[in-house]
Amino acid sequence: MAKAKTTPLVAIVMGSDSDLPVMKQAAEALDKFAVPCELKVISAHRTPAEAAAYAQSARKRGIRVIIAGAGMAAHLAGALAAQTELPIIGVPLASGSLLGQDALLATVQMPKGVPVATVAIGGAFNAGLLAVQILGVGDGKLLDKFKAYKTQIRKDVLAKKV
Amino acid sequence: MAKAKTTPLVAIVMGSDSDLPVMKQAAEALDKFAVPCELKVISAHRTPAEAAAYAQSARKRGIRVIIAGAGMAAHLAGALAAQTELPIIGVPLASGSLLGQDALLATVQMPKGVPVATVAIGGAFNAGLLAVQILGVGDGKLLDKFKAYKTQIRKDVLAKKV
Amino acid sequence: MAKAKTTPLVAIVMGSDSDLPVMKQAAEALDKFAVPCELKVISAHRTPAEAAAYAQSARKRGIRVIIAGAGMAAHLAGALAAQTELPIIGVPLASGSLLGQDALLATVQMPKGVPVATVAIGGAFNAGLLAVQILGVGDGKLLDKFKAYKTQIRKDVLAKKV
Amino acid sequence: MAKAKTTPLVAIVMGSDSDLPVMKQAAEALDKFAVPCELKVISAHRTPAEAAAYAQSARKRGIRVIIAGAGMAAHLAGALAAQTELPIIGVPLASGSLLGQDALLATVQMPKGVPVATVAIGGAFNAGLLAVQILGVGDGKLLDKFKAYKTQIRKDVLAKKV
Amino acid sequence: MAKAKTTPLVAIVMGSDSDLPVMKQAAEALDKFAVPCELKVISAHRTPAEAAAYAQSARKRGIRVIIAGAGMAAHLAGALAAQTELPIIGVPLASGSLLGQDALLATVQMPKGVPVATVAIGGAFNAGLLAVQILGVGDGKLLDKFKAYKTQIRKDVLAKKV
Amino acid sequence: MAKAKTTPLVAIVMGSDSDLPVMKQAAEALDKFAVPCELKVISAHRTPAEAAAYAQSARKRGIRVIIAGAGMAAHLAGALAAQTELPIIGVPLASGSLLGQDALLATVQMPKGVPVATVAIGGAFNAGLLAVQILGVGDGKLLDKFKAYKTQIRKDVLAKKV
Amino acid sequence: MAKAKTTPLVAIVMGSDSDLPVMKQAAEALDKFAVPCELKVISAHRTPAEAAAYAQSARKRGIRVIIAGAGMAAHLAGALAAQTELPIIGVPLASGSLLGQDALLATVQMPKGVPVATVAIGGAFNAGLLAVQILGVGDGKLLDKFKAYKTQIRKDVLAKKV
Amino acid sequence: MAKAKTTPLVAIVMGSDSDLPVMKQAAEALDKFAVPCELKVISAHRTPAEAAAYAQSARKRGIRVIIAGAGMAAHLAGALAAQTELPIIGVPLASGSLLGQDALLATVQMPKGVPVATVAIGGAFNAGLLAVQILGVGDGKLLDKFKAYKTQIRKDVLAKKV
Repeated sequence: MAKAKTTPLVAIVMGSDSDLPVMKQAAEALDKFAVPCELKVISAHRTPAEAAAYAQSARKRGIRVIIAGAGMAAHLAGALAAQTELPIIGVPLASGSLLGQDALLATVQMPKGVPVATVAIGGAFNAGLLAVQILGVGDGKLLDKFKAYKTQIRKDVLAKKV
Repeated sequence: MAKAKTTPLVAIVMGSDSDLPVMKQAAEALDKFAVPCELKVISAHRTPAEAAAYAQSARKRGIRVIIAGAGMAAHLAGALAAQTELPIIGVPLASGSLLGQDALLATVQMPKGVPVATVAIGGAFNAGLLAVQILGVGDGKLLDKFKAYKTQIRKDVLAKKV
Repeated sequence: MAKAKTTPLVAIVMGSDSDLPVMKQAAEALDKFAVPCELKVISAHRTPAEAAAYAQSARKRGIRVIIAGAGMAAHLAGALAAQTELPIIGVPLASGSLLGQDALLATVQMPKGVPVATVAIGGAFNAGLLAVQILGVGDGKLLDKFKAYKTQIRKDVLAKKV
Repeated sequence: MAKAKTTPLVAIVMGSDSDLPVMKQAAEALDKFAVPCELKVISAHRTPAEAAAYAQSARKRGIRVIIAGAGMAAHLAGALAAQTELPIIGVPLASGSLLGQDALLATVQMPKGVPVATVAIGGAFNAGLLAVQILGVGDGKLLDKFKAYKTQIRKDVLAKKV
Repeated sequence: MAKAKTTPLVAIVMGSDSDLPVMKQAAEALDKFAVPCELKVISAHRTPAEAAAYAQSARKRGIRVIIAGAGMAAHLAGALAAQTELPIIGVPLASGSLLGQDALLATVQMPKGVPVATVAIGGAFNAGLLAVQILGVGDGKLLDKFKAYKTQIRKDVLAKKV
Repeated sequence: MAKAKTTPLVAIVMGSDSDLPVMKQAAEALDKFAVPCELKVISAHRTPAEAAAYAQSARKRGIRVIIAGAGMAAHLAGALAAQTELPIIGVPLASGSLLGQDALLATVQMPKGVPVATVAIGGAFNAGLLAVQILGVGDGKLLDKFKAYKTQIRKDVLAKKV
Repeated sequence: MAKAKTTPLVAIVMGSDSDLPVMKQAAEALDKFAVPCELKVISAHRTPAEAAAYAQSARKRGIRVIIAGAGMAAHLAGALAAQTELPIIGVPLASGSLLGQDALLATVQMPKGVPVATVAIGGAFNAGLLAVQILGVGDGKLLDKFKAYKTQIRKDVLAKKV
Repeated sequence: MAKAKTTPLVAIVMGSDSDLPVMKQAAEALDKFAVPCELKVISAHRTPAEAAAYAQSARKRGIRVIIAGAGMAAHLAGALAAQTELPIIGVPLASGSLLGQDALLATVQMPKGVPVATVAIGGAFNAGLLAVQILGVGDGKLLDKFKAYKTQIRKDVLAKKV
């Protein structure tokens, strides 16, 4: 059972290992809620077959939500969404010279039929929280934990003195 | 039990009744999967107390996912996200003169701690599909239905002749 | 009476204590005119109930103008405007990767019925001056002081040699 | 005394008579609160002397707030702000091909020392409301009226059925 | 041999049949040079397996250049580029509310290793011409024809009287 | 007569002395052609009367072209153009957080009747060259000098080895 | 001498005859000042040799100022500026889907050494006025006429009643 | 024959020698495939005659593809495309203050008849790869090499551990 706990429920994938400093914040958010996750580098453009296979097999392997971060013409989240019925959270990353504006549009402006749940540019931590909320839809205790987390960040803000 | 079926699982809220032609597409998507929903006009700016109360009570009333559509300085999705632990899907709407660019940024660029799952500008139908996927995380049959839907739209594209 | 003088007339609120280096410039502007103010961290998204309560009670506590600064999907000014009849001045802040373009649109593009008096990105000092002008509408001496200030900055420019 | 009532408290100026269909909405907002106003065409670029004289004499003539609407390289609000200590509300207008993005930036991005209280692109009605709020800072009854107006628009939204 | 001539050398693919009015202009350009082509609807997001198979088999089937048109988060050109060594020409299409700015960035901002030869928004005719030029690199007569075409459009411009 | 030579033909004005490092490049360009100029800090917003007087008297004082540089809601060039029949060259400056995009639009998007000859963001050197070309319209020798300058920069490029 | 009067002083060139409805406004402006001009279709991309020859010979033929209008990747003004020492006025045109934003940047952002005097998007009338001002630098009577024109448009604005 | 091998097939031109650090990445990409190339500084604006002559003679000298990199109002690729029937690859460079947005639009938004194959901002390496793919259209072995390269970068990604 302890082992079962470590079967990842959330996959965090990124187009390049240079995205890790931002994308690991998604794992940090999941850790706060003891939600097991796996991190992986997969590129929609350089490893398309692996990206497809990864997405197709994810549900069977127990993954419930996929978080995908990519920069520039950020296709990763959409490419995964094309291959699985699982909900996909997209994190636009600010690589290249356009400050992430390209990645934001390439992630969020998905066509009818294939949504990607997009968060802010660089918003990997929030992507992790959103995954918790999504898992919480079928797990009341987890959603209660998220409620408690919201209470905590509320207290943190109220404690600030300026 | 028939009654239970009609208890809405998804709330579709919008800042103005002029948003209905777009936002009802979310309901149409949910209908395809027999997911019961409710539609409501609530404004983050004109009815803030009602917006807060609506979000705070939503989980208790059985709502599992909230879809919020708004234009311009689109605060509705974020304002609801501030008041509930439920996942919020934001639909930026293209009202006003900036083509929805304002609504997109005001919806997606949420601060750390309070994510909004944002879809494309005017993407209410996809918001409905995303709600189905999110509900499917805790309901394998619904997720199977979504998988079947993906198969169907694949067939629709393949049937196109040009 | 000395005490009365220190009852704040202007509230300067910000979404995060990291906004203080910019937002305290509003207080510096007010200080030039001996207008008492208070500074406070309140988040539209992380402390929504406190934000609502703060705005609702502000007039009663003697506040006449509220200055609100926030970055990214900057909802703070609009959220306060939703809860009080006092005039709200919004300061878009350049946090995140979009240089404050997101905050500008999220602050200024308010819907019909709920205006926010928006100043430049990072324009907290000008927000303080605008508050002085607004207070001056009902206080001729203060408006005279502002006139004198304008004369002073005119002289400062004229003294520049290049 | 009836006469005194009709002495305008708010000036609504615009760069061109083609701006009237939008800018008269400011007058409509003021009318709801029985705040007398005057409308005038003045161009910062084509009638700069008149614009300067108008702003310089406004306070003396009893004007308390000036609303200025202009499109493209919208200098009118800033040009008036340069010439008077009265608060200036700027309304960026969507003339020309850039959808008002030029007017927004030319109105809101004012330098240190000379703020313009900017509202949404085309937001003349809100400019009128903001003028009411500003006048209300020194006139509690007017501010109470504005509070009542907010209650009314809240009721209007709540009455919407979708 | 006549048959051989009709074996398509260029594939024109598009994400939706609604893109046909623009994308058939690529075929019109190719027709001017008697370059045989095929048109096909394939979606990177709705038919990802078919898109992959199509790109993987294209070279073997005799295709030398692929032109791909898509709107919004336009992934089609990049998705094909990921699956074949053939040169891919991307045509960003102006569907949705952002005037094709999203499609332009999603098409052109490709990561290192996987280029897409991008033309103007809606520039399907130029995409056809570019395919002719690319084929002309290994076919001097075709390149001569393109040179003659340039002479012709030069004459057309010179014949204009204003 | 030597003295007459030093009577400035071109005025270089800027909104703030912090603009000097960029704006002095205009003087450097003029120096290459021995065109006498004067530099001055004048603000459209902080010294409007002086700006007006300066523009109104410029022709009489012998000034033939005015170069005006400003950042953000850059009104200086337009404000001077409103007050004189002399040609005005506008230099948008990249101060503030929007990289000069605000200054570009505020400078170039002038209304019918009052043009500003706008150069690139930060393009003060080119503004100086353009002033030389404009003076050259009535001074063939100066225009010949400019032609020689173009020959020189051509040679400079051709001498580059990579 | 009457003949001499009709020797054009200003050339108005455009990339396509479809630009004529906008570009002829430059001729209308010049007509108000009896400045003779010629209109011509030349394309930087489709007739590059003719564009070069036209610019190189313009001064010799008596042309003093060239006005060039083009849309999209608007190179015409810059291409002419590369070939002549005469001042070039660039008019960005709003063809294509980007509202003229592409043409504005492609016209104004010229590199060091080769300025283009850029006016507003679609601002052909102002381009004509600017040409008059430039010619006026060496022709006091023409500059006086322009001053009178400014007086007239001032009167036109003052006559507007709203 | 060894000599023949070193006759350049690809020309890499750039508007300024300051572009070399980015543009030499195109040569590095070509080197991986032993495709000989030449690098050259030519400016569309400062050496227009040389740019024209270079493009006109390129095919005769054995060049098959031209890669052109430029920043700001980046006309170089288009200016070369106007003068030759060879395919032109454009690399927008991020010089100046607009992050390369100006160069992207000035490169990609080419008019009907004169395409430029545009890659990402700063994407010189990809421009080199695209040249290889284009040459590969008439050279199966080169295209096979490119296929092998794609296999290699796939392996590189798969080897990444995070």
